[in-house]
Amino acid sequence: MGLIVQKFGGTSVADTRRIHSAARRAVAAKTRGNEVVVVVSAMGNTTDDLIALARQVCENPPKRELDQLLATGEQVTIALMAMALHDQGHEAISFTGGQIGLVTDNAFSKARIQSINKQRIFEQLEAGRIVIVAGFQGVTPEGDYTTLGRGGSNATLVALGAVLQADVCENYTDVDGIFTADPRIVKNARKIDRISYDEMLELSGLGASVLQTRAVEFAKKYNVPLHVRNSQNDSEGTWIVAETPNMEHIVVSGAALKKDLTRVTIKNVPDRPGIAAKIFGDIAAANIVVDDIIQNVMDDNTANISFTVEHGDLHDIKPVVERIARELGPKAHATYQGDLAKVSAVGVGMRVHTGVAQHMFKTLADARINIQNITTSEIKISCIINKDDGPRALQLVHDAFELDKSK
Amino acid sequence: MGLIVQKFGGTSVADTRRIHSAARRAVAAKTRGNEVVVVVSAMGNTTDDLIALARQVCENPPKRELDQLLATGEQVTIALMAMALHDQGHEAISFTGGQIGLVTDNAFSKARIQSINKQRIFEQLEAGRIVIVAGFQGVTPEGDYTTLGRGGSNATLVALGAVLQADVCENYTDVDGIFTADPRIVKNARKIDRISYDEMLELSGLGASVLQTRAVEFAKKYNVPLHVRNSQNDSEGTWIVAETPNMEHIVVSGAALKKDLTRVTIKNVPDRPGIAAKIFGDIAAANIVVDDIIQNVMDDNTANISFTVEHGDLHDIKPVVERIARELGPKAHATYQGDLAKVSAVGVGMRVHTGVAQHMFKTLADARINIQNITTSEIKISCIINKDDGPRALQLVHDAFELDKSK
Repeated sequence: MGLIVQKFGGTSVADTRRIHSAARRAVAAKTRGNEVVVVVSAMGNTTDDLIALARQVCENPPKRELDQLLATGEQVTIALMAMALHDQGHEAISFTGGQIGLVTDNAFSKARIQSINKQRIFEQLEAGRIVIVAGFQGVTPEGDYTTLGRGGSNATLVALGAVLQADVCENYTDVDGIFTADPRIVKNARKIDRISYDEMLELSGLGASVLQTRAVEFAKKYNVPLHVRNSQNDSEGTWIVAETPNMEHIVVSGAALKKDLTRVTIKNVPDRPGIAAKIFGDIAAANIVVDDIIQNVMDDNTANISFTVEHGDLHDIKPVVERIARELGPKAHATYQGDLAKVSAVGVGMRVHTGVAQHMFKTLADARINIQNITTSEIKISCIINKDDGPRALQLVHDAFELDKSK
Repeated sequence: MGLIVQKFGGTSVADTRRIHSAARRAVAAKTRGNEVVVVVSAMGNTTDDLIALARQVCENPPKRELDQLLATGEQVTIALMAMALHDQGHEAISFTGGQIGLVTDNAFSKARIQSINKQRIFEQLEAGRIVIVAGFQGVTPEGDYTTLGRGGSNATLVALGAVLQADVCENYTDVDGIFTADPRIVKNARKIDRISYDEMLELSGLGASVLQTRAVEFAKKYNVPLHVRNSQNDSEGTWIVAETPNMEHIVVSGAALKKDLTRVTIKNVPDRPGIAAKIFGDIAAANIVVDDIIQNVMDDNTANISFTVEHGDLHDIKPVVERIARELGPKAHATYQGDLAKVSAVGVGMRVHTGVAQHMFKTLADARINIQNITTSEIKISCIINKDDGPRALQLVHDAFELDKSK
């Protein structure tokens, strides 16, 4: 008995049959004696369809109007979900973001949640109703619709979990949970039962996951347990929870592969204080995410600064980098190496176990996979390698740390 | 130069091409120096499609949730309309009913407008923007979405016209205006240039029109000139305005036919005060509209009370009438006569001209059309006839009053 927030993504509410199926899950949780709040996304490809419709009308639609348009997607689903519950004999009420006072800043298309008025939700829960909330959307203080950006429904899920002090946030997807590696590449990948927020953050930053970094950060901050599970079956999924001491027994929890990276190197950068800050400040201003930053100081008092970007961002970052190089003086210039990948091992156990990095490097070396760069964090080791070696490297790292075996 | 409120119905915004075409009309009005507010309906058959989707999920969806669902239809159109204006190089901003504080009572599916907050609209107009407002919808004081019932977008149009003290409300449809009779039946029907609110009220009550009774009543109350015109061409449509003395020169302005009526007669009703009030109170409680009420008192101190209902309502009204008859005593009983129609002539000139009724009765009699009942108002004469005689009767009345000739 407790308060459960469930979230159903687009594929889990793609048609009226699936909406009924999701509704039955909410009813099951209610029947077990819980108070239930349900967050839903837009049905199937609705959001993409609406964006395509907007582009038919206007090549570059104003973001406020695009959010006004996109917010209808979730509004359709909440109403249908409430009707499905009514049809199954249960009282339910649907709310848009605005109707529960989910107020955001006014950064249309990628707004951040500022506050939620929980009173209206609690009133309805106390009246015995299942409460349905539109994911992905909020309103500005002036009442304009905003959307929360990619993965925004998960942000709604976790924010509601935090504000309502939910016992668990259940994230229903079309997979069984978080895996030790991408099961499409590593056939013996194993579903993880429990994982810490920090490990999940590293893995989701690596693109290995159904959960966006922002949602996990928020869950960590407010200590909301997340349960990622499959909407098509009843098996337990993966619990994402605060770190416990016994998690450190597991040295490596998961491995991940990020494909299609390009390494950008700016050579002959004057080695002065503040230069790196300027370079990455300019890049951040262009709204491009970079990773794996490495700086090498040379003998001639210059430095080489390199970092990776996703291949798709190269077109946007190139003019920024070329301008920076020009500003840095006549010797500075940029080079680009594409067709790279990154294989990583993640685990909180690295904090207390030694030899993890060496074991990983040796595994790759024995297989004659060339490591071009290495970056590490307290709980992660990443190696930049050739793209073609990526899938094989992921399988090797998975095998080396025996991730297929439950510990 | 002034303030114009334009409304585009579903067919006028059925696809992105038509939305652009409607946007061009708004731009044209703006370019002529006007401030422009645009009210739009849901695109094409969107509302019907959403209702069908709801019925897939739940046979009898809760009305609050149905309104939550239906309100998305207009929200899509307002966003696309704002984008189309942006694409044409004009500043525009879209508002849902809630965003302009269009507050209604909480009679979901047929809510009544209580107030509109005009401040936000005026701010945007003063900033030089075209303002787009979602028709057909509002919010309760608690922020729940409501819809305004059939023809609700016209209610929004006229309410905005009244609140903003617009110089004109333009109602864009797919016909050229209001005609002297249904042009599908009467080939020489003529478009009316000017008609009074009262005449329009009688005609729309007769089902002869593109404007619902409620919108016309509202326009009359606040003296808002309405201009019904075709979105596919630039010709002047029909102006619906306050009555002027020279309108009385025209004895009959239009003729209308209502088909598929059934006459219900309750016989041997005790002739006591309050009986009629009870009968029609019970029928109103069942939410059925009746018309053409006639009461005849018989020699034996009983009365026959008859009225007409649309054939489609017969199924609903029959049990109510049977119950009333039982309660009225052992002699009372109900009879039903179907396959009736009603032909009517409407004109404010009837107030000052005599002989209009006789001319109409003689016209029908000469054509051997039997008149079963007659009802009149100050500006209307209606005859109940056999359904099969309907179209011929309409043409005869149209010819008798020379409605094809401009006066």
